[in-house]
Amino acid sequence: MNPETTARLLISCDDKAGIVATVSNFLYHHGANITALDQHSSDPEDGTFLMRLEFQTPHLKTSRSILEQSFAETVARPYNMDWRISYAAERKRTAILVSRQDHALLELLWRWSRGQLPIDVTHVISNHQDTRAAVESFGASFHHVPVTPDNKASAEQEILELLSDNTDLVVLARYMQILSANFVSHYPHKIINIHHSFLPAFIGADPYRRAAERGVKLIGATAHYVTEDLDEGPIIEQDVKRVSHRHEVDELKEFGRDIERNVLARAVRWHAEDRILLHQNRTVVFAEW
Amino acid sequence: MNPETTARLLISCDDKAGIVATVSNFLYHHGANITALDQHSSDPEDGTFLMRLEFQTPHLKTSRSILEQSFAETVARPYNMDWRISYAAERKRTAILVSRQDHALLELLWRWSRGQLPIDVTHVISNHQDTRAAVESFGASFHHVPVTPDNKASAEQEILELLSDNTDLVVLARYMQILSANFVSHYPHKIINIHHSFLPAFIGADPYRRAAERGVKLIGATAHYVTEDLDEGPIIEQDVKRVSHRHEVDELKEFGRDIERNVLARAVRWHAEDRILLHQNRTVVFAEW
Amino acid sequence: MNPETTARLLISCDDKAGIVATVSNFLYHHGANITALDQHSSDPEDGTFLMRLEFQTPHLKTSRSILEQSFAETVARPYNMDWRISYAAERKRTAILVSRQDHALLELLWRWSRGQLPIDVTHVISNHQDTRAAVESFGASFHHVPVTPDNKASAEQEILELLSDNTDLVVLARYMQILSANFVSHYPHKIINIHHSFLPAFIGADPYRRAAERGVKLIGATAHYVTEDLDEGPIIEQDVKRVSHRHEVDELKEFGRDIERNVLARAVRWHAEDRILLHQNRTVVFAEW
Amino acid sequence: MNPETTARLLISCDDKAGIVATVSNFLYHHGANITALDQHSSDPEDGTFLMRLEFQTPHLKTSRSILEQSFAETVARPYNMDWRISYAAERKRTAILVSRQDHALLELLWRWSRGQLPIDVTHVISNHQDTRAAVESFGASFHHVPVTPDNKASAEQEILELLSDNTDLVVLARYMQILSANFVSHYPHKIINIHHSFLPAFIGADPYRRAAERGVKLIGATAHYVTEDLDEGPIIEQDVKRVSHRHEVDELKEFGRDIERNVLARAVRWHAEDRILLHQNRTVVFAEW
Repeated sequence: MNPETTARLLISCDDKAGIVATVSNFLYHHGANITALDQHSSDPEDGTFLMRLEFQTPHLKTSRSILEQSFAETVARPYNMDWRISYAAERKRTAILVSRQDHALLELLWRWSRGQLPIDVTHVISNHQDTRAAVESFGASFHHVPVTPDNKASAEQEILELLSDNTDLVVLARYMQILSANFVSHYPHKIINIHHSFLPAFIGADPYRRAAERGVKLIGATAHYVTEDLDEGPIIEQDVKRVSHRHEVDELKEFGRDIERNVLARAVRWHAEDRILLHQNRTVVFAEW
Repeated sequence: MNPETTARLLISCDDKAGIVATVSNFLYHHGANITALDQHSSDPEDGTFLMRLEFQTPHLKTSRSILEQSFAETVARPYNMDWRISYAAERKRTAILVSRQDHALLELLWRWSRGQLPIDVTHVISNHQDTRAAVESFGASFHHVPVTPDNKASAEQEILELLSDNTDLVVLARYMQILSANFVSHYPHKIINIHHSFLPAFIGADPYRRAAERGVKLIGATAHYVTEDLDEGPIIEQDVKRVSHRHEVDELKEFGRDIERNVLARAVRWHAEDRILLHQNRTVVFAEW
Repeated sequence: MNPETTARLLISCDDKAGIVATVSNFLYHHGANITALDQHSSDPEDGTFLMRLEFQTPHLKTSRSILEQSFAETVARPYNMDWRISYAAERKRTAILVSRQDHALLELLWRWSRGQLPIDVTHVISNHQDTRAAVESFGASFHHVPVTPDNKASAEQEILELLSDNTDLVVLARYMQILSANFVSHYPHKIINIHHSFLPAFIGADPYRRAAERGVKLIGATAHYVTEDLDEGPIIEQDVKRVSHRHEVDELKEFGRDIERNVLARAVRWHAEDRILLHQNRTVVFAEW
Repeated sequence: MNPETTARLLISCDDKAGIVATVSNFLYHHGANITALDQHSSDPEDGTFLMRLEFQTPHLKTSRSILEQSFAETVARPYNMDWRISYAAERKRTAILVSRQDHALLELLWRWSRGQLPIDVTHVISNHQDTRAAVESFGASFHHVPVTPDNKASAEQEILELLSDNTDLVVLARYMQILSANFVSHYPHKIINIHHSFLPAFIGADPYRRAAERGVKLIGATAHYVTEDLDEGPIIEQDVKRVSHRHEVDELKEFGRDIERNVLARAVRWHAEDRILLHQNRTVVFAEW
């Protein structure tokens, strides 16, 4: 995959006959060559049409802006589509919020620094100073925004101002503050959280302890988009690991951290590669399994 | 493993120094050779001592009953042990209860008929006739005990009478009737149920539909001991399978059935091989992973 | 998925701009509504175009034969496509060959009898009588074709004659005879074998014993198309299970059988649903993970 | 688990009746309290007795050296045991050898720096300078020992001298030089290598490319002890990940790196915790799954 030449088109709309033909004709006549296409209808009759395709841009016959404008008018409007075109070379500008635990943060920075996570890390913001040195060693910009019971609103305002320079994605990499509905409304389906349980099990606090007490045989973690309803946003990715009576709560937490960092890294990668569509509070992930 | 010569000893008690020495001395002096031993203390100080061991009986210097009596008096009483000795050749007499869905039942009968499940299937009891032919083709005894809103108590009584011939284990292989507290009290930690979700997620009815609606990325099943509290008994085994937006509820159910039958088969096997101890509403499974 | 109305189109050809547009236009203008499409190019420049799509036939404007003829002339020929259209209602006529071990056979018959395997089982053929009763209890037709060192060619001939009634798929469900190149040539990429190791490890005989001796920590099984080169045909599906020093060879075999039956069932299902394309001695599986 | 008070005893010897009793008596009478015990006989008759136990030392009635000397004379000698006692507080002094690829190295250093890997990293030695800064940022000592076709022997000598300060374990974290038999003989079963394939598949060079060409559906990695026979030493741990036709060789390598770092980290952890015994060129891993 050459990021310089690869673009992605994501579409969701009411399903009708002829959409694939219309879209592929449009692209063909504008010189865009489709190299991957994944389409799914939620129901053969009266369902929702969901599609992700990748196309190559070297032989485009128009500018990108003309292409998009033309697509909007001649294809998207008639079918009443939700759609977006993105270009692999335009990496999502990403802010990472973190508290004290650094495992998820470091995994993201590590993969990012190795070219495995196609994002630009614009800010790392924490309510603690603990991770500053590690963040800066990766060449990322660290901001300390302390949060107290009294300054919650102003702290959020300070974060929003930091993000105001065109932030495309906010990742909560174990950020232990609950964001207000107002904050969330600025980034609809653009905030990814890692929750330290296999949702919907163990919603809320201290899930590993509760998992140990319940005696589950698998523990897990869940990456999801943040919505107003805590722990209820659309799930992007989950994974689990087998545990046994030999593992105390601290070990479950340690295992859990390994799951968390991998699950979050996958979720961020899929978002960054425009592999995720929303459908009825659920994600459709066009993952490359 | 030779079932004719293999016995198992399971112990749980308050942890103290010297238990392993005392038990292994006892066995040695009675001519019992330990061939596998798995011991775990829930805490190095003031924890619970949990142990499973296998020993070989060919060179026993006493009868089994004398061995057990002597163990009770000289070892178990001083340490205030919960303990049991079982012999691999004495297979657990097992009744299977089932409603209409036969996948879990058939998996058990199949493994049983192939010698992979060391139990004796004494009864298959159903509130429907659907599985009679399949059950009888395995040479197992089928009983139809219809259940209606009006005869629930008498139906349970009828089942209890069927089981009164020394039943060691009751397996609910998708039995869709809720057993009364009275019934459960006859078989404490001797009733295994397969629940069609990854507990504690989706407790209650129609879990696969609710899993689809929540958009989880893994579905699962849980085998657990039945207690008075529905879906709250000690978990024996769980497993999951990855699913995606491409799978409709019916497919989740189909995948779920595959998980259910394997999870239940493992749980029954571990119970049959005396691999399970109870500790604070949790199972300690000395599994042979 | 309604099998009465669902058709599938599979295409592989040299990649060029416009193929998706051409194909989807063709379908649209013939009244075929695309409900799932999965397309992959092996390389953005000069690669191979690989595509599977599902379309619905209720509103087709021509007969199926006209549709296919027209597609052949106006679409497939100009692009020099390898292609096929199949209809979900026309189940693949499938023969299963088996020797003494019945686990893979029974899993297939079980899933088939439950409607989970969209094939027609036309013949079960064995060089032993052991599985006759089980096969016939599923209502399938059993044929005993003994094989000795002396009659190998005539036995194969007898099998070929049995299959001559339009067999679409031959499944070797632990058939312990090596098929001749002549036999294989009658069913190119239409014979699926289950091999009892994680290929290419442990090619050849007695893989579980060799796995135990090598001390591997995972054992596996592989479903593959049969070609002239033993154990070298395109791999369709594989899976593994964790094992440990506690497991003797017999237990590895038992675990292996569980993997084998599931891996084979998935491979047969994917073939039956026309999810598999060949590309350079490898399979492209448009699986619905 | 309190490392200050925890010791481990590992034993392998010909199996005989009474070993557990003898060992546990010995420990009891010396004030050592057993808190975990895992014992396995390779065969009920004439097999090998293999055992790992953990005991607590706060109430020891002798010094450690007296305890060990006494055990050697009164227990180990009569049974002709291979045995060792280790103390959790005495971390294995570990050297890591690496070439250019840093993923396995960094995972080890990361876990080590977080207290998740109970080793002391005494040296990181590389034939390249690439990883120096990263290594030193963890506070570990970096040594550059260049290797050319001409200086192989003297480079190995230089490494051996660096290791001569009581090195307990050598980890090859993607060290691309083949060690000589002489070098290996200094550290028998004390050198752990990570091999980038699911051994014994794809022994030798460039395994991911060969995996892609063979079209396997799972790729893997293997941690093993290094012996004179390249890629043939006892396997400690393996894992796999599902891949598909969508993944090019570079992606397989990227996925592989994730498997490699986790598999190696587990193997090193198990070695560090004295969980591994050797038995007939195979490992017995008393893992805490």
